[in-house]
Amino acid sequence: MKYEKYKKDLDYSYALGITLTFELLINKSQYLQDVYFHSSFNGEAKEKMEKILKSLGKEPIISDKIFNILASKENVYVIGIFKKFTLKLQNNNHLVLVNPANAGNLGTIMRTSLGFGIKDIAIIKPCVDVFDPKTIRASMGAVFNINFKLYDSFEDYKQQYNNHHLYPFMLKAKTKLHQTTFSKPFSLIFGNEATGLPDNFLNYHSVIIAHSKEIDSLNITNAVSIAIYEATKNIY
Amino acid sequence: MKYEKYKKDLDYSYALGITLTFELLINKSQYLQDVYFHSSFNGEAKEKMEKILKSLGKEPIISDKIFNILASKENVYVIGIFKKFTLKLQNNNHLVLVNPANAGNLGTIMRTSLGFGIKDIAIIKPCVDVFDPKTIRASMGAVFNINFKLYDSFEDYKQQYNNHHLYPFMLKAKTKLHQTTFSKPFSLIFGNEATGLPDNFLNYHSVIIAHSKEIDSLNITNAVSIAIYEATKNIY
Repeated sequence: MKYEKYKKDLDYSYALGITLTFELLINKSQYLQDVYFHSSFNGEAKEKMEKILKSLGKEPIISDKIFNILASKENVYVIGIFKKFTLKLQNNNHLVLVNPANAGNLGTIMRTSLGFGIKDIAIIKPCVDVFDPKTIRASMGAVFNINFKLYDSFEDYKQQYNNHHLYPFMLKAKTKLHQTTFSKPFSLIFGNEATGLPDNFLNYHSVIIAHSKEIDSLNITNAVSIAIYEATKNIY
Repeated sequence: MKYEKYKKDLDYSYALGITLTFELLINKSQYLQDVYFHSSFNGEAKEKMEKILKSLGKEPIISDKIFNILASKENVYVIGIFKKFTLKLQNNNHLVLVNPANAGNLGTIMRTSLGFGIKDIAIIKPCVDVFDPKTIRASMGAVFNINFKLYDSFEDYKQQYNNHHLYPFMLKAKTKLHQTTFSKPFSLIFGNEATGLPDNFLNYHSVIIAHSKEIDSLNITNAVSIAIYEATKNIY
């Protein structure tokens, strides 16, 4: 078998399922390696996908074996294999995730971020694997629609985008989100799920999503979505 | 063994882990049945928990066997068993979940709702099991801090709280969230993860969280948290 079960050090990853593979074909076809169809894949979606593949000069590979290896426990009829890629951020508003550790959370955040028009995400290492099939699945394909770039440190990111207004989200911050005016271009910055951002981020314009004392903190994906909603809400 | 692995038709459920069991002891001790300590449970948390148990006239049961049955794959040192309970809603602002289907989502929503002071959640059947240990875990204990009540139909709920202003969240709605003023007491209403709310909810003051066309919809937990944040943001 040409492809093996996902590991971080492989130079490819894959989109499991029809929806994700469509997103891959439409948005990142230049990185497409192969598309596998299960022998029981049929109907309109199959025809539509064959058409797109043809326009890309590709043919689907019909094989059931690979589904046992890459998607053994799941109800999957299509697998899109792609070469891992690197992107550049645009000089727009950014989301900055410092040391995100959970693949599902990262994917969900990508989807919500795209949903509110923030298409540029900086990710500070160490971090979860962006190409983990779990990230790709949770993003519902958003990973093929946004720009993301990994940085070795927050300083590296900051130097490159020194025109950005930095808004770290922290429980220790004094300014409440709904009293914050975001100057553009902005960077909304969030820390690791368990530890948050280190105290030195209080030197920037830090922001708190004020909540009751009955919970310790908001779930990270909920916190990011509230922040992005508030920062972009006059656009939609 | 007195207790078996969770099933919906049992009249008890359990909190796995130290944090959840503390929440159970502090907020719902009247429903407490037993607390199990793993033989390797030690330190400050153990002493604190023993103190609380003593004040409740209870003693922990030291046994490792039950951990293999109820928490086989997890790093858990404490299990709190409780009798399932029913609660009444207060006549405050409500969250109404119509046919929620995912245990993790329900728990996360409970936590965020508590975080923004909405402590009364109506759940319209059919729905996921509120006492599923997955719900309890995802709620991070919020399930022991809020009031929730199941209703056979939305009509049943509505009749009982006919003073509430109803705000269903729907993709087909015309009023945008950030242009909505919420009259109190309000009910923020959300549909099932996959299907949303049926069209007849458009007869109420329906609301949309406007987003870009690049995603089909927001993740339900993110949508609920954005809505609750906006509806309560002058409180915190």
